[in-house]
Amino acid sequence: MTQTENLVAWLRDAHAMEKQAETMLNAQSSRIENYPEVKKRIEEHLKETQSQAERIEGCLKSLGASSSGMKDMGGKTTAMMQGLGGMFTSDEVIKGAMASYAFEHFEISAYTALVAAAEELGETQVADTCREILKEEEAMASWLAEHLPGVTKAYLERQAGGQTAKR
Amino acid sequence: MTQTENLVAWLRDAHAMEKQAETMLNAQSSRIENYPEVKKRIEEHLKETQSQAERIEGCLKSLGASSSGMKDMGGKTTAMMQGLGGMFTSDEVIKGAMASYAFEHFEISAYTALVAAAEELGETQVADTCREILKEEEAMASWLAEHLPGVTKAYLERQAGGQTAKR
Repeated sequence: MTQTENLVAWLRDAHAMEKQAETMLNAQSSRIENYPEVKKRIEEHLKETQSQAERIEGCLKSLGASSSGMKDMGGKTTAMMQGLGGMFTSDEVIKGAMASYAFEHFEISAYTALVAAAEELGETQVADTCREILKEEEAMASWLAEHLPGVTKAYLERQAGGQTAKR
Repeated sequence: MTQTENLVAWLRDAHAMEKQAETMLNAQSSRIENYPEVKKRIEEHLKETQSQAERIEGCLKSLGASSSGMKDMGGKTTAMMQGLGGMFTSDEVIKGAMASYAFEHFEISAYTALVAAAEELGETQVADTCREILKEEEAMASWLAEHLPGVTKAYLERQAGGQTAKR
């Protein structure tokens, strides 16, 4: 595999990752009932995620590749994606936030590696796009980190008050 | 479920998480061949992880609970753990680092929630222990973030030189 083929393969992985993210964010936002602030931020990030997938398609096109080769994605990457999806099986808001936070950092690491790879290959535009997406993922991760303690305390307080507000 | 029972359940999840981490770190360190610095840091964190599991056991004991109830852990938490494990199926060093980075943040979010929960319940010692572990997880995550761009570039340079140094 050439270095450019490697970059293309990683971009395809990133595209698949965003598609996976879309599925998970959709499922999460439809599940949340009692935490409107969390629901709202997830819905915002869902829109960002859809735009990120499109921007990655743009990168692939600029390298003369398409995103349609994803179905040929290696079994190992598929297993990795399924693994990430498997984290979202809980309907408890805290566990959902934890899974989102982990997933955001998976994305952050993917774009960190992509920026480094694109720079190494002199693909400035691809590096810029990935850097832009990276910032959006970091913003979402920071939001989750800031709100997790408050959501945890709200969850326990509701529980103490005899309310069941798991999600 | 009372608030304390909730805290105990989350601590048990954390214990299971550290056991899962131990398995994954072991597998990763034995797989890496060409990235000695990464291997060394993983081995250091493996020792930390073993000590973290023990410290969580200490917290459980202080609350009058044991870690032995883990086999009764809910199916959903188990699925989540398996999901996390599923991320580590690639033998490529970059994907391994990405999975580790995501897993560290899953742990960071777990301890962030635990600190908030322990504080809410006035369990100061549990909060302190979880805060201490949180710092170790954050240090490991920072190390991975700092080294990922360099490892990515080294990987691509080896590839350009005709070397296969995937792991």
